[in-house]
Order: sequence, then structure tokens, then C-alpha cells
Amino acid sequence: MRILISDVVSLLKDGSSQGGHRVDIGVEKGEILFIEEHISWDSEKRQHQGPWDRIIDGCGRLVLPGFVNAHTHLGMTLLRGYGDDLPLMTWLQEKMWPVEEQLTPEDVYWSALLAVAEMIKGGVTTCADMYFHMEAVAEAAAESGIRAFLSRGIQDAAGSGLQGLGEAVRFCRQWQGAADGRITTAIGPHAPYTCSPELLQRTAAWAAQLEVPIHIHVAETTAEVEEIAARYGTTPLGMLAANGILDLPVTAAHCVHMEEADILLAAEKDVRIAHCPTSNLKLGSGIAPVPKMLGAGLAIGLGTDSAASNNRLDLWQEMRTASLLHKGSNEDPTVVPATTALKMATDFGAKALHLEKVGQLLPGWKADLILVDTDGLHWQPASDLTGRVVYAGERADVSMVMVDGRILYEDGSLLTIDEEKVSCEVEKRAQRLGLLPSN
Amino acid sequence: MRILISDVVSLLKDGSSQGGHRVDIGVEKGEILFIEEHISWDSEKRQHQGPWDRIIDGCGRLVLPGFVNAHTHLGMTLLRGYGDDLPLMTWLQEKMWPVEEQLTPEDVYWSALLAVAEMIKGGVTTCADMYFHMEAVAEAAAESGIRAFLSRGIQDAAGSGLQGLGEAVRFCRQWQGAADGRITTAIGPHAPYTCSPELLQRTAAWAAQLEVPIHIHVAETTAEVEEIAARYGTTPLGMLAANGILDLPVTAAHCVHMEEADILLAAEKDVRIAHCPTSNLKLGSGIAPVPKMLGAGLAIGLGTDSAASNNRLDLWQEMRTASLLHKGSNEDPTVVPATTALKMATDFGAKALHLEKVGQLLPGWKADLILVDTDGLHWQPASDLTGRVVYAGERADVSMVMVDGRILYEDGSLLTIDEEKVSCEVEKRAQRLGLLPSN
Repeated sequence: MRILISDVVSLLKDGSSQGGHRVDIGVEKGEILFIEEHISWDSEKRQHQGPWDRIIDGCGRLVLPGFVNAHTHLGMTLLRGYGDDLPLMTWLQEKMWPVEEQLTPEDVYWSALLAVAEMIKGGVTTCADMYFHMEAVAEAAAESGIRAFLSRGIQDAAGSGLQGLGEAVRFCRQWQGAADGRITTAIGPHAPYTCSPELLQRTAAWAAQLEVPIHIHVAETTAEVEEIAARYGTTPLGMLAANGILDLPVTAAHCVHMEEADILLAAEKDVRIAHCPTSNLKLGSGIAPVPKMLGAGLAIGLGTDSAASNNRLDLWQEMRTASLLHKGSNEDPTVVPATTALKMATDFGAKALHLEKVGQLLPGWKADLILVDTDGLHWQPASDLTGRVVYAGERADVSMVMVDGRILYEDGSLLTIDEEKVSCEVEKRAQRLGLLPSN
Repeated sequence: MRILISDVVSLLKDGSSQGGHRVDIGVEKGEILFIEEHISWDSEKRQHQGPWDRIIDGCGRLVLPGFVNAHTHLGMTLLRGYGDDLPLMTWLQEKMWPVEEQLTPEDVYWSALLAVAEMIKGGVTTCADMYFHMEAVAEAAAESGIRAFLSRGIQDAAGSGLQGLGEAVRFCRQWQGAADGRITTAIGPHAPYTCSPELLQRTAAWAAQLEVPIHIHVAETTAEVEEIAARYGTTPLGMLAANGILDLPVTAAHCVHMEEADILLAAEKDVRIAHCPTSNLKLGSGIAPVPKMLGAGLAIGLGTDSAASNNRLDLWQEMRTASLLHKGSNEDPTVVPATTALKMATDFGAKALHLEKVGQLLPGWKADLILVDTDGLHWQPASDLTGRVVYAGERADVSMVMVDGRILYEDGSLLTIDEEKVSCEVEKRAQRLGLLPSN
């Protein structure tokens, strides 16, 4: 399928804009063939190495790299809105865990498909997942067409560490590079406080052998920091360093409570970070030192975390919140400017997942892109374009979503997912699991 | 016009939900005639005191009180996205003020109409404005059908205080109770640091005589607190108390930097508060002590502030941000729960503007209400309804907006505002004022 997107508005290469510029984008074999200044639309239209299977008129629309959701748990979308506003341990012990024990692979499959459908409609083209029944998630990702970085979560609870590691290793072997390379894998030791040093060391050895990254939660709460200090006399990141995890490519979710020394260590070890601002707020975890981490040169992507702790899978919201939150908490309106927030939602997100040629609109890079309608009232007047994307735009403005050169969503319709079927299956399963109000 | 909304889902009276309950709502002469359990839809449908001019089938939709935007500057919507991410004084001195000096009444009219159009589409039925050329804003509010609490802003800059006060008084006399009572007025002394004690005292005397409230910015930034301490040896709220302002009904916007004593004083004087979380973040002002202020029993509504410091006029976002932000900054997931956040966006907002019989769905109260589609993927599964409204809902879900018993928006169309004309006028004026990128 060779697709030409003609006369669409693009931002400048550094993510800034002077009103944007008009470009033509050619797509072939899942890649961006070229992105060039728009040429006039008559006899010259075939200059762009036609014939084309399809020519999309981008006039009046904005093209952006697709958003990267750098940390989520797709299988938990069924638990959206189940136990809002509760203390963290009550929420986990009385709401999340008892339900999670009952989840079947089919539940996780439909939950993941609901999540992927919501994400695609909102312009997310890549997601990073950590959960169990991961084959079901991989099936959902493969069928839907989204790009996915998938890890089987493991922890030591109830002596399940080694069994989980075994499953995680098998999962990597089976799915690494699947779905035409759209699926990449990692191993997901849950967190420094839920994995023993031995489990982490074994995990590191396996990840090195398989040549896959580590996806892990780090320093999410004050309680975690205190527990790790008491048990090991170090910080969560220090504990991971001591057990060999940081010698591998790492995607570290949260990093809310990071000391100066942690930030330097993360920079030295090139730890990639998935910042989850909404989830950190909703669960009362705190506010991550993002300006300091950006200042240390860390690659920081954005994640929604699960729908149970957000309750949206909306990268527009994470991008806007990341930009706003740190201005307010630092009392400095210049930190995390719009250009940076947009990079965190795209390019830095791809870097956080160790993906190559994803997250920017460049020739030879993956054709993961979205078209955005900018004629809504909330986009007016036509002032700085990047600022309007970050502060004013919303997911209802997304009109087309392409992953790997394939159109997954266009003009209100999902092309690879049966929305009604998903809704019906999700409702049925939520009912069975006791997640709906009794009324 | 007598309208029956039949078989719509409503929350319980305390704002919570057990899946909601199905009701019929009768509307007549701008008021809610009744809100009762839904009765079967055949011969009994006329029991509800028909005939009806219109019967709206609410099946599958949720009814909410319309949102109240308790603090904004509608005339600044033209400046949306102009000067994002700059230090506060640079933003004010080099971006906002030079443009504001050039604004004509016609500019403010079209700017206000753009704002009102965006707000109505997003479910806002009442707004509170403080600006100049307020006759133009009042005209826009009157024509559009929105409910508005309007105040002419005044300050001492360039000796303009008394002239501004004169205009403010004339404005109140002319517009109080206009547009069938949809317009109420206040006097808007800008802030403790921009108004002299003398101006505040005269303002208080006039407000008492006219029987209108005061709408004022209070304790927005650390710089303001320091300046007031240096000049008067007290806090911003203390300075207002010393000059008689707090003896009147007050709507105090921001209240970011409030000491314990300020909160007690505000409670004692029944000061109503307009919390503007997004603006406070974007301008780097800080994070207001909302849980403490709620704990003291203060009525706290939500405001967007202007589109220049937000850049959205979206109460869904303010409601969600108010609920999330204070959980995170206090590291406590139980503060500002969804039921409270929803009240802040509706009932408490109306209280913050001293409006009677606005903000709840009760017989005899104003028929200011919205219908919300809850069949989008992001609303699934059908767990706690209030939580989904606050954490998952968004303004694109709004399908009908009614103010004072009149439908202003339905199925994607604004019924009182010509969107294309507004867009065209706004773009033309933004161009003239030099607000668009040079390209």
C-alpha cells in the first residue's frame, strides 16, 4: 500500500512552529518514504514517485508523529472506575488484587482490545504494557495493528518469581519481532520492593541473553522509598543498580521520588523513564522531579498507567498535564514548555521504549502518524501551533491514525476493531467479575 | 416552551451514584418543574402535566447540572496561545498588556462570543467574567443565552481607578438582572496589589449601595503575598478585610497562597472562592490549599481563568484537574473525591457566584442542565458513574445544553451562535492585532 498525504501542515523539525509549514508525505512498506515541502497540486502531483494506491488530502489538517503511551496495564481496563478515591492499600487489597486473581486470558484479551481501541482513537500508535496473560495482550496488539512493547510482569509474591520469569522468557522468545516487527518484548520485574535481589539478578541475566530491555516500576511512592531504605539501605534505583538491572536497557516507570544521586545514576546508566503524571496524582504518589530529570538529559516519555488509576488512556491529557504540573509545582511557567511536552509524548516516548526509527516524521522512519483537525473553536485564533497542540488540543480532534503505514482509524471509524463487539464483551465480563454497581 | 426530558439517567441527590437512576424532567418558564422517577412510556406519558412542546428521549444519556465557570476573562480569548511558556512578567508586559491596550469593544465582543461558543459546547451554562468593554461582553452573553455574572475590572494603574469605578457602577445599574435575569453583575476591583486602600473602600461603599458582590483576584502569586506584606504588613485577604471588602459578598479568584489564618478569615466572612487549577499551574502561580479550604467549609467553585493562561475554557478539565492535583500534591488519594469535584464544577460554582437556585437539579431551580452521551469507549465498563464523569468524561461527550429552559446546543450544533462568523471575525482581528505567527 503506497499512500500520499498531500498538503498537510507539519511542525518544524525542532517541534516548534511559526504557523507550521505545508508538506507532502509519501508512505510505502510501513515507512515514511519522504516528507517534503508541498508542491502544487496539478500536473506535478505524480512527481512524488506515483502511482499511489491512495492520495489523502491533508488540507487544513495537522500531521503529528503518533503518540507513545510508555507505560500502561491494558488488562486492567476492565477495572476502570472500580474503587476511585480510596487509600492506596485499600484500593489494592480490597479492589484490584481480588479481581485480578479472577481474570482469565479472555478477560485480558477483551480488556486490552478496549484499551487499544480507546488509544487508537486518541492518536496513540505505540503502547508499552506490563501484565500477565500477555499472550492475550499480544494477540490484541497484533490484530489491532498498534505498535506494542510488551512485558510479562513478574514478582516474588507467593513464591511465583521463578515461574513468572520462566513465562516471561518464553513470552519474549515467542513474540519478539512478531506482527511484522510491531511487537517488541521486554521482561517486567514489577518493582524493587516486590522482587528479591536474587530474582532481579536472574532476570538481568535472562534479559542480557535474550537481548531485551527491562520494564520496571521505580520509586513510585514514599512508602516504597522507605521500605527499600529499611531493607537494603539504599534507594530503589540504587537497589536495581546493585543487582545488575541498570547494566541493561531499562524502561523505568514513575520515578516520582528520585534523589539528586538517583538522577545522576539514571543519567550515567541511560535509564529511560516513563513519567505517569495523572496516575501519580490520582493515587496520591506525588509529583516527579521532571524538570531536574530533563535537565540531566534523561529521555522521559509519558504513560497513562492503567485505566484503573487514571481513568483515561489519553496521551493528550498526559502531555498537557506533564507540561502544566511542573510549572505549577515549581512556580516557574518556563519549565517543560510545549515543544518539550510534545516530544515527551512522541520522540522521547519511543526512546523510553528503546524503539528505533519511531517517534519522529523522518524519511526511513516508521510511518506511525496522526492527522488532527484544527478547525474547532478551541484551536482559535491560529496562534502558536505547538502551544495549541499541547494546551488546547484534545483527542476528539484526531481524524486519522496510521501505524506502520496502515490506517487504523479514519473519520470516526476504527478499521481493525469491532467497537460494538468489544463493548458487549467488556460489559459482560465486568458484570461477571462484580465490577458494576449493584443499583 | 414546555419541555419533557424522558428516561434520562441522573446521579443520586448527594452527587454519588449506584449506577444512577432513571428520571423524567419537566421544564417550563426557565425552571425545572419536576424531576421524578421515570414512568413507563405509553399511555402514562401525559401524566406529567402535558401537553409538551417537545419531548426529548434521554434514553442512554446522563443529565447533569450545567457547569459553572466561576472565573474567566472572555475578552482575552483572542490572546489564546499568545506567549505560552514565558516568565510571568515578560508574558504580561511584552505580550498581554500591549495587545489589551489596542482592544476595541468589537474585539472584546467577538472574543467573548468565541469563548461563550466554546464553553456552551463543553457544557458550561454559567460564566463569571471580569474585564473591560463589559457592555460588549454583556451583549454577547445576552444574545448567546448563557448565564453570566459580569464585572467591570478596575485598578489604580495610571490613575484610572475612579474612572473605572464610575464605569463599573454604571455597568451594574444598566445590566443587573438583564436578559430575563440571566445576567447578574458585580464590581471587579482587580486585586489587593493593584488597588489602593482608598479605591477598595470606595468600591465597597458602592457595592453595598448597589447590593452587588465583589469579584476580585486574591493571593494568586508568591510575589503578590510578598508585596502586600511589605506595603501593608498583612496578607492579601487581610488587606481586603481591613478595607471593608469582606463585609460584602465576595467571589475571590485563585486564593493560591493562603495561610491558616486567611482560611479561617475567609470562612468567618463567607468568602466564596473560584479555584483555577490549570491557570495556576500554567502561570507557575502554585497549588492552592484546596483540601484545607474545603475542610473549613468554604464554597469553592472552579474557573478556567482566561484562554490566554489555560488555554482551554473546559470545565471537564478543571474538574478533573482539581480532583487529581490535590491528591498528588498532598500524597493522599482520598482528598477531593469525584463527588466533591463534580459539586465544585456545578453547585459550589453557583454558590461562589452568589446565584440562587442554580447548580442543582431540583424542582423550582433554574433549568440549566446538560445531557451527556456515555456510550464512548472511555466510559466503559459501566462502573461508578460519578467517577466516570470526573475522571473519564470529556466535553466531546456533551450532546445537549440548556440554559434557563432554552436549548443552546444540540447534536453538534450551536443554536444561538453562528460559528463560522465567529471564526472569521476572530481570525481577522487576531491578524490585525499581530497575534498570529509571521510564518
